[in-house]
Amino acid sequence: MKHFAKELWFEVPTRRAFVNITSQVEGCLAESNIQNGLLLCNAMHITASVFINDNESGLHQDYEVWLEKLAPHAPVSQYKHNGYEDNADAHLKRQVMGREVVIAVTDGNLHFGTWEQIFYGEFDGRRKKRVLVKIIGE
Amino acid sequence: MKHFAKELWFEVPTRRAFVNITSQVEGCLAESNIQNGLLLCNAMHITASVFINDNESGLHQDYEVWLEKLAPHAPVSQYKHNGYEDNADAHLKRQVMGREVVIAVTDGNLHFGTWEQIFYGEFDGRRKKRVLVKIIGE
Amino acid sequence: MKHFAKELWFEVPTRRAFVNITSQVEGCLAESNIQNGLLLCNAMHITASVFINDNESGLHQDYEVWLEKLAPHAPVSQYKHNGYEDNADAHLKRQVMGREVVIAVTDGNLHFGTWEQIFYGEFDGRRKKRVLVKIIGE
Repeated sequence: MKHFAKELWFEVPTRRAFVNITSQVEGCLAESNIQNGLLLCNAMHITASVFINDNESGLHQDYEVWLEKLAPHAPVSQYKHNGYEDNADAHLKRQVMGREVVIAVTDGNLHFGTWEQIFYGEFDGRRKKRVLVKIIGE
Repeated sequence: MKHFAKELWFEVPTRRAFVNITSQVEGCLAESNIQNGLLLCNAMHITASVFINDNESGLHQDYEVWLEKLAPHAPVSQYKHNGYEDNADAHLKRQVMGREVVIAVTDGNLHFGTWEQIFYGEFDGRRKKRVLVKIIGE
Repeated sequence: MKHFAKELWFEVPTRRAFVNITSQVEGCLAESNIQNGLLLCNAMHITASVFINDNESGLHQDYEVWLEKLAPHAPVSQYKHNGYEDNADAHLKRQVMGREVVIAVTDGNLHFGTWEQIFYGEFDGRRKKRVLVKIIGE
């Protein structure tokens, strides 16, 4: 069994954004030289997500509006977590979008459907944060 | 290390439905001949889910009503994604229910609690779509 | 390839609670003697979650309020699942918070960011329930 781990760094200049990281994850897979196995990709921070969906900017705006409706940022005083911080909503939004994805690796490729793309979902940006890619297989 | 991959096809005649796929996933496990490892089961489409919950029709009706409240289909014009399409809500519902499940394989069986069953959640059906089963182990 | 499985038992005295299980999961990893691989930790019950977030009591109160807003317990008659049971809301809340987490194991440790902690999320407690830890690797 082979194993591979790499941390990817992101610094999003806004509070919230969706970043397509598919090609970076594919780069990790190529580097690992693993042909068949499982690939885990997860946010290493608890106010961010890694998820798989469509690379379509209209949809990303829909996610932004929808998440803000489900877990509004303001007023920040509505959350007990917001004593010294103002990011409670980011911890909630991250649960809706998820921490991680697990992806099949088959014959050296991400075993994806036609429209599957991997996104880093940032909900409390403006600082350096990490995503982990771990691959096991052979 | 052994590895196994199989794509299962579904064509749901309605826009939305929940389909119990537990026996098909168990069939994949038997076919793989893997005794101990991890099994990934994921939707290969971004308007569908694979999730684990109860095989109870009342609950499935509750999910339908609840998801329609959290992310309503109509009016379709409320979503920027709905230019040529009308399925933005399906991309949102799928995030609540999840893309994938990872299941332990122990002594040749899905290592499940009493009531755990695997479902394909369709949110934009009436066409052929795929679910992937990937298993690694020994 | 090595593999390891252990079931952890919990009995939460209230209907809902969040329990930090990080040290128990780390105990499983030490016991497995696996240095590099993947660790799956999942609820074996369909009215409970395993998730990763912050070990901060204010946030946990925010989750409680937020989940009760997204999927209220009462009136129990609003859910078709609640014929003989009263826990339909628990099946909904568990979907928001998730069934499972998959964690990278690197050099004998959970490969975590600074603030990542593992929680058992109970939404229908007052009885014994199980969490599974499965690890594969070498």
